[in-house]
Amino acid sequence: MNHLLSINDVTRESALEILDTAAELSRLSENSIKKFPTLRGRTVVNLFFEDSTRTRISFEAAAKRLSADVINFSAKGSSLSKGESLKDTALTLQAMGADAVVIRHSASGAAHQLARQKWMSGAVINAGDGTHEHPTQALLDAFTIRRNLANGEGDLKGLRVGIVGDILHSRVARSNVLLLQKLGATVVLIAPPTLLPVGVEKWGTEISFNLDEEIDEVDVIMMLRVQRERMDDLFFPTEREYSRNFGLNNERIQRMKKGAIVMHPGPMNRGLEISADSADSKRSVIVEQVANGVSVRMAVLYLLLGGSQ
Amino acid sequence: MNHLLSINDVTRESALEILDTAAELSRLSENSIKKFPTLRGRTVVNLFFEDSTRTRISFEAAAKRLSADVINFSAKGSSLSKGESLKDTALTLQAMGADAVVIRHSASGAAHQLARQKWMSGAVINAGDGTHEHPTQALLDAFTIRRNLANGEGDLKGLRVGIVGDILHSRVARSNVLLLQKLGATVVLIAPPTLLPVGVEKWGTEISFNLDEEIDEVDVIMMLRVQRERMDDLFFPTEREYSRNFGLNNERIQRMKKGAIVMHPGPMNRGLEISADSADSKRSVIVEQVANGVSVRMAVLYLLLGGSQ
Amino acid sequence: MNHLLSINDVTRESALEILDTAAELSRLSENSIKKFPTLRGRTVVNLFFEDSTRTRISFEAAAKRLSADVINFSAKGSSLSKGESLKDTALTLQAMGADAVVIRHSASGAAHQLARQKWMSGAVINAGDGTHEHPTQALLDAFTIRRNLANGEGDLKGLRVGIVGDILHSRVARSNVLLLQKLGATVVLIAPPTLLPVGVEKWGTEISFNLDEEIDEVDVIMMLRVQRERMDDLFFPTEREYSRNFGLNNERIQRMKKGAIVMHPGPMNRGLEISADSADSKRSVIVEQVANGVSVRMAVLYLLLGGSQ
Repeated sequence: MNHLLSINDVTRESALEILDTAAELSRLSENSIKKFPTLRGRTVVNLFFEDSTRTRISFEAAAKRLSADVINFSAKGSSLSKGESLKDTALTLQAMGADAVVIRHSASGAAHQLARQKWMSGAVINAGDGTHEHPTQALLDAFTIRRNLANGEGDLKGLRVGIVGDILHSRVARSNVLLLQKLGATVVLIAPPTLLPVGVEKWGTEISFNLDEEIDEVDVIMMLRVQRERMDDLFFPTEREYSRNFGLNNERIQRMKKGAIVMHPGPMNRGLEISADSADSKRSVIVEQVANGVSVRMAVLYLLLGGSQ
Repeated sequence: MNHLLSINDVTRESALEILDTAAELSRLSENSIKKFPTLRGRTVVNLFFEDSTRTRISFEAAAKRLSADVINFSAKGSSLSKGESLKDTALTLQAMGADAVVIRHSASGAAHQLARQKWMSGAVINAGDGTHEHPTQALLDAFTIRRNLANGEGDLKGLRVGIVGDILHSRVARSNVLLLQKLGATVVLIAPPTLLPVGVEKWGTEISFNLDEEIDEVDVIMMLRVQRERMDDLFFPTEREYSRNFGLNNERIQRMKKGAIVMHPGPMNRGLEISADSADSKRSVIVEQVANGVSVRMAVLYLLLGGSQ
Repeated sequence: MNHLLSINDVTRESALEILDTAAELSRLSENSIKKFPTLRGRTVVNLFFEDSTRTRISFEAAAKRLSADVINFSAKGSSLSKGESLKDTALTLQAMGADAVVIRHSASGAAHQLARQKWMSGAVINAGDGTHEHPTQALLDAFTIRRNLANGEGDLKGLRVGIVGDILHSRVARSNVLLLQKLGATVVLIAPPTLLPVGVEKWGTEISFNLDEEIDEVDVIMMLRVQRERMDDLFFPTEREYSRNFGLNNERIQRMKKGAIVMHPGPMNRGLEISADSADSKRSVIVEQVANGVSVRMAVLYLLLGGSQ
């Protein structure tokens, strides 16, 4: 594996290798080894065309714990926004010695373009491209599920995962569906019909329009963030209606199976897609997801860059 | 001490320990030891909701000299400004492995909220919260006074410190009053009545409306920055009147006691609260304050994080 | 040499020393030594009053490869823009322990002011000041020419370099003219009369208004970036006319001498001053310029900071 662009390119075996490596790095970190010399002298560039402080910080923390040098490149206000092509940016970063570029872009396919055109010999890591994919998010979610429901080993066979909300615009949902199925889980998408993409029936998931019918069946309920700027769209329910039909609240939490867990990629809209008590309930592993995000990104950087030495 | 939120929480003994540690670190730095391994593998997050490049850089330099990894998080444009709660931000930073969070916020009490709610096990350092406190500024000011007027040892007993200007809105004044009194100094607040807070008579300081009556009595004159955006307020004198009555100029400098010093937290409005020649006069220790700021912040990070190992 | 402000201050010998050092550092880097301990414990501040991500990243990568701590200080939105003087900023950075300040400013002479006023004992490196100079760009260009056309040794005697475009506003042109002549090259400026500065006849270069008459004579053709915001000026040709008369395209490339090379300081406007196929042609060393930029900046930091130990 030279790049991490899409879960589509990741085999079941590669995915498990990433999860195993992340588990090992996480274990070592807990034993107070906070810094690994693995990527000393390597340069990781965070190339962010969209603001995403959480994801940027998570990659930055991961790279620094592996002793890499990190250069943050917010593309807003840079020559890129003044019309420099993605190609010239890639060639520039490559020439400056970037060993890996972590790219976040509003256009679906931006990371692929960077990698596939051979503009860079360094590794390209997709940190979210448009409504397309967010592979490290899917990997950290799988890691979190495995740790909580599968003893931290093997795959996710036999587990039922509900993903709730705006599937249409969610790169998180897309990457998760691909990875969860690859690892043997059953996925049910739970959303109003207007928030499901055309062709969703070919994704191989189950589909439901009714959260209440599903809540007591799933092992994992994954709540998606509502983008408030989309609430004005014609096809979007009102906030109140959305919350009533598709929000997670204490009543619904009570009906969940023993051991079932609540996930959210963050940042949360408390009171909209998830109530405050749900977010803080004992079933919630939302904070653990964040911690696992650093371990999984360390594993990805380690395998893409460290393995080649 | 787990956090540094307010000078109120700092005992006289803790304050002296910080000053002594800063003196030792400063001494070692001058002996060309520029980098200490103490915080290697530790992560310090600068969480700034307000722009303050000077304070951010000072903490960043301090943390890096102790070999910590530093992650800068300007909260503008981040999900925080999109409505994520301070709680979720704290939980996120905690989960990502932040050992200390240096927070600057426009709301008084923000740092306390972060620390008191037990959202974080890491250390919280208040780098300025609203009009409330700015404890490391007070510590670096005390350090500077001690070094210049007390042989760098012990407390500040017997010294008289005048603080001049917009006491009402100044977190610097508030933290300094608390710390200077704790260390035995006498403080006199010098300001027009409209720029003194309600209840100031309970602060235990002297109060004066006349700089000329005080200038030859003090050992230290500390000029506060005038926030130009406040000059339009009804209670604020005109710029010319302010400068004439409460500005430091060469004439007033001449009348100061032998050995008395001039301080300013920066950034200065040269020509408004302080004339250019006053800022550059031999009495001025304003540049030294900046250098001492790095030493004091190193000491705070060292004691909060390094001591626990 | 204590600072790098202008090519005017750099002797032929100093310039060759920088190029030789850059060559040595580049050679070592290729032998997989990616990180040098030379500047460990030293602090380099990037003080950017103008956005220039490429230049900032290049200096940041250079400093980090020498193990320096890097602090980025974007002066937008800082107290500087709120009226703090350059003097106080300099004194502040000095007091915080900056060993070098890399400054980019829209005002010609800003770097000189910082250095000449003795506000700082640290090194000042001019990373572009107004329409005045950009010395590290000239050095990396000379390095690139030397490597491609002079076996990487000695000076540039006998070479003919054409610089094409908006000479009037270009600090890149100004610094290059000074350095190329110092190293023995012949420079011809190629531009419409309206884009040549008053007094250009005293620069000691040849001048041409016709690219087609020069293209088969030069060993190096250096295309300048067109600032689109200047296209509305009265004296500027239309985009189409500019491109036809002064743009580099495949036809012109074909007419170049054997071994002649194409340069551009970036970022390019593909299709305006340079066609896409010209930028990507075999003659183009544009990407190599970027890589050489890091080596040359490492050499400058090394010689200014490392040599003093």
